[in-house]
Amino acid sequence: MPSYKAPVRDMKFILHEMLNISEMSKFEQFSDLDVDLVDAILEEGAKFTENELAPLNVVGDHEGCVRHADGSVTTPKGFKEAYKTLVENGWTSIVRDPAYGGQGMPGLLGISVAEMQTSANMAFSMYPGLTGGAIKAISVGGSPEQKQTYLPKMISGEWSGTMNLTEPHCGTDLGLLKTKAVKQADGSYKITGQKIFISAGEHDLTDNIIHLVLARTEDAPAGVKGISLFIVPKFILDENENPGERNGVSCGAIEEKMGIHGNSTCVMNYDDATGYMIGEENKGLRVMFVMMNEARIGVGMQGLGQSEVAYQNAVEYARDRLQGRSLTGPKNENGPADPIIVHPDVRRMLMETRAFNEAGRALLYWGAKQEDIERHSKDEKAVERADDILGLLTPVIKGYLTDKAMQTTIDCQQVFGGHGFIEEWGMSQFVRDCRIALIYEGANGIQALDLVGRKLARNGGRALMKLNGEMDAFIAENKGNEDVADFITALEGAKAKLTEGTMWLMQNGMTNPDNAGAGSVDYMHMMGLTVFSYLWAKMAVISQKAIDDGSNEEFYTNKLITGRYFTARMLPMIDSHLAKLKTGAEPVMALAADAF
Amino acid sequence: MPSYKAPVRDMKFILHEMLNISEMSKFEQFSDLDVDLVDAILEEGAKFTENELAPLNVVGDHEGCVRHADGSVTTPKGFKEAYKTLVENGWTSIVRDPAYGGQGMPGLLGISVAEMQTSANMAFSMYPGLTGGAIKAISVGGSPEQKQTYLPKMISGEWSGTMNLTEPHCGTDLGLLKTKAVKQADGSYKITGQKIFISAGEHDLTDNIIHLVLARTEDAPAGVKGISLFIVPKFILDENENPGERNGVSCGAIEEKMGIHGNSTCVMNYDDATGYMIGEENKGLRVMFVMMNEARIGVGMQGLGQSEVAYQNAVEYARDRLQGRSLTGPKNENGPADPIIVHPDVRRMLMETRAFNEAGRALLYWGAKQEDIERHSKDEKAVERADDILGLLTPVIKGYLTDKAMQTTIDCQQVFGGHGFIEEWGMSQFVRDCRIALIYEGANGIQALDLVGRKLARNGGRALMKLNGEMDAFIAENKGNEDVADFITALEGAKAKLTEGTMWLMQNGMTNPDNAGAGSVDYMHMMGLTVFSYLWAKMAVISQKAIDDGSNEEFYTNKLITGRYFTARMLPMIDSHLAKLKTGAEPVMALAADAF
Repeated sequence: MPSYKAPVRDMKFILHEMLNISEMSKFEQFSDLDVDLVDAILEEGAKFTENELAPLNVVGDHEGCVRHADGSVTTPKGFKEAYKTLVENGWTSIVRDPAYGGQGMPGLLGISVAEMQTSANMAFSMYPGLTGGAIKAISVGGSPEQKQTYLPKMISGEWSGTMNLTEPHCGTDLGLLKTKAVKQADGSYKITGQKIFISAGEHDLTDNIIHLVLARTEDAPAGVKGISLFIVPKFILDENENPGERNGVSCGAIEEKMGIHGNSTCVMNYDDATGYMIGEENKGLRVMFVMMNEARIGVGMQGLGQSEVAYQNAVEYARDRLQGRSLTGPKNENGPADPIIVHPDVRRMLMETRAFNEAGRALLYWGAKQEDIERHSKDEKAVERADDILGLLTPVIKGYLTDKAMQTTIDCQQVFGGHGFIEEWGMSQFVRDCRIALIYEGANGIQALDLVGRKLARNGGRALMKLNGEMDAFIAENKGNEDVADFITALEGAKAKLTEGTMWLMQNGMTNPDNAGAGSVDYMHMMGLTVFSYLWAKMAVISQKAIDDGSNEEFYTNKLITGRYFTARMLPMIDSHLAKLKTGAEPVMALAADAF
Repeated sequence: MPSYKAPVRDMKFILHEMLNISEMSKFEQFSDLDVDLVDAILEEGAKFTENELAPLNVVGDHEGCVRHADGSVTTPKGFKEAYKTLVENGWTSIVRDPAYGGQGMPGLLGISVAEMQTSANMAFSMYPGLTGGAIKAISVGGSPEQKQTYLPKMISGEWSGTMNLTEPHCGTDLGLLKTKAVKQADGSYKITGQKIFISAGEHDLTDNIIHLVLARTEDAPAGVKGISLFIVPKFILDENENPGERNGVSCGAIEEKMGIHGNSTCVMNYDDATGYMIGEENKGLRVMFVMMNEARIGVGMQGLGQSEVAYQNAVEYARDRLQGRSLTGPKNENGPADPIIVHPDVRRMLMETRAFNEAGRALLYWGAKQEDIERHSKDEKAVERADDILGLLTPVIKGYLTDKAMQTTIDCQQVFGGHGFIEEWGMSQFVRDCRIALIYEGANGIQALDLVGRKLARNGGRALMKLNGEMDAFIAENKGNEDVADFITALEGAKAKLTEGTMWLMQNGMTNPDNAGAGSVDYMHMMGLTVFSYLWAKMAVISQKAIDDGSNEEFYTNKLITGRYFTARMLPMIDSHLAKLKTGAEPVMALAADAF
């Protein structure tokens, strides 16, 4: 059975040495932040996820969720107990607002904890994960009363939440949605329609489920301008705000999926269900998008999380499995064969995954830090800057991280040879679970379009200018540092190529938008690689300094070795992406639609 | 439910217009070959696979195979009837030796038929597929009596065959295998041991199963020099050569796998089972490798087959699914949205798959033609040449085609958005089934090592020189052809880069073999891309000529468009691979094994 060990040392490196989490204490909300507490939380998070969640991962995959005739859903064996522990240990409230019972820790710490849960058991982690999204939506768009009514119990984990966007005929194009909301005399609404692909739509983990549902009021304008957002609790609250009467919402079916079997993906039927509007009429998408941006970071993390746990198990297998001899002579002379970790191609797959995971984690946590700044800084300039950078990075985190994670997770499965294909070994599950991350919360093609069509151009390209400015300052500062000169040179090269790609898009995307569309995924990968190059250079500078300062912890040497793998073996991809981008729409669009 | 339509037009293009299958009639065995018959077989093959096999694909995935307490195995509903039809219609004997009841058609035609079966139902196609491998082994290594005893009923399809190589502790490194063969007074052997991952090891489709088993005789030398090959029938033949007494071989378990559920992947237990040696003692691997080379071509075809059927279904979905509007203005103004095929990134995924499939098919069939020449030509030079080219191409066909097919099949799944992740739509199955093709018959890393470590250097690099010579002649011949100048230029560029990579390997692989190992997969992809570039140029020349000759069949224009997609969007990958290759072993091997 596969296992999981939280990469606490690497998390500490990023949180403390790279992103300086202690700086957060300058924000009022985090004024009590204590570095020792951060480390203690990481250690506790590691224990919980390694010992409680990881062993249930295979169980969840194997058993799946069961829908009963009455529409109720049972989660896999052990999930209920694990969820109880999750709640009791306070993991659901760690980054939440103290005004509603949260512990008010930085999101930067929260993302480490969330990464652990995701690696250990992605399907399980989605139950609290979706609740987090719903909390965010209510926090952003809800009235004071709605916040008071729903947030405390969602934050404590007593209730969970869902997001209901997709309908059978529309996912990406929400303007087409049909679910109806009819206003009642008491100001509430009756919601009727069908939603599909609703993660955690029905289950047995919590006393209530707070569904957030996109629907149209009567006479709402067509398209995206007529969509409102509603709270639809599974049980309508009674006068004491406890779950009371069953609402007209039920799970019609559970989808049979490729992966994340432990999470119930439901068809949800709304039949005159009582709902309460969040925020303004016809402005539901605005709130939903705030939530979705956070969810996109979470999905990027799912990619990374699967790649990390797949890596760990592949490493273990590669050390244990004896097969063949090293090309440079036996390394395990007394054994029947060498461990397969001696083979360069096995190494290549492990190094690729490792170099991806470490940079991916840095990118993800860097993004989380921007969100903390955006939410808690009082400095308008700093908020604007954080918002710009995060907006630009979000599609890259979601799209690039999951695209690459799919490849690395498959590579890790490949290390197992035939055993990788056998379910018992667990590698298939990582691949199957990872697969959804490229699709939901906006398929990766949509992320690329968001990047190229919206984020690049917004405010006259301000976000990219800020990112470039930050990289330029870093380059200037470290240019004389001989020991890491290779990292700086690589970054300069990547940056120049990204700029070339950006210029090409500016010059050619206007005349024919399909030029931008056709190159969008290549551009997203170019930005991912450039940002990785920047983060690797940063991590190299820090590691080199630690060594220069006398540390003999191997961690730092290994960091440099891994970073140099990135530069040598991953970064060259940027040239192919640039070349492809610059061929424009013609090769992609030339074939008539009926000729395919 | 997904569907399949055999790409008969493209098959005819390759068989007739590109590879000139009618030329085969110059070989004695194919002297009666009739072009009309070829086409008739393609049409019949299409009907059978589209109507009989494709509908069972989902059934097979869903039901899987069931092992009963007595060790017997039931295949999914409908497989038995379909197999009966397969046999009755003569599909199992089509390319087999007329001396044993075969129809003696060229392998070049056989591969088209096999491709159809694989696309329609990969798990099903493996039952006759494995028999084909066993037939090959007996044909190559068996005594005249063994051939007479086993081949006719295997060729007719009454009996099936298997290959038993892998043991729990060894797959790639067969030198470690432990299964024992003890010689009996009558010249037969008693075989004892356990084999795993035995495809079609036990099932209910045939009256007998002829297992080919690698084992060690007593006192055999250690390692690969002490391995012999044995025939072990499930039922020992009686005096009339009919299945009689049950042999001491049984299925101990069926593996639970990621895909190909319709094929029974068995743990096979041999307990004093009666076996008959094929060929010489301790020379079993030689025969097995002949068979394995053919099997590798078959696995490359599995990748292509899944990519083709995934493509077809993704195209259909992309035409039907209405979501969003074209970036260049509505294309379906009266509808609620445009079909997603208008979106450049959806096109990109479809075009990538299409360009891969058409070149992959050309490569595969070109390889099959070499095998026909190798087997049937009387011209020693021609045989040597075909053998060289096929030897060089085999790892590329297996490794490059399946690596790329995994990516394209995932892309086609991506076209479906959320529905791609739901089993009901069938795209998940194509991805899960495809996954095994990167692993078995020598994992793709092993293919790359075979290419770089053996095939390149063999006979002083003769094979690559021949391939280069062929490409150079083609370039010289078509250099003045303005209409396809872009294809020729692209090929020249690819060839130069491949040569640069080859030179680098020659210069650096000797001093440190890990340099070759670390770059082997990149080199394999470079060769794949170069050969694709050659084949696309050939197909372009033929298509352009057809157009110049007055054809107005859109097929030719579309061929050119698809080829130009390849040149613009796929071929640039070669630069990244070359750059990565040239960084050598250092970045890959620098990390200490215990530091991962």
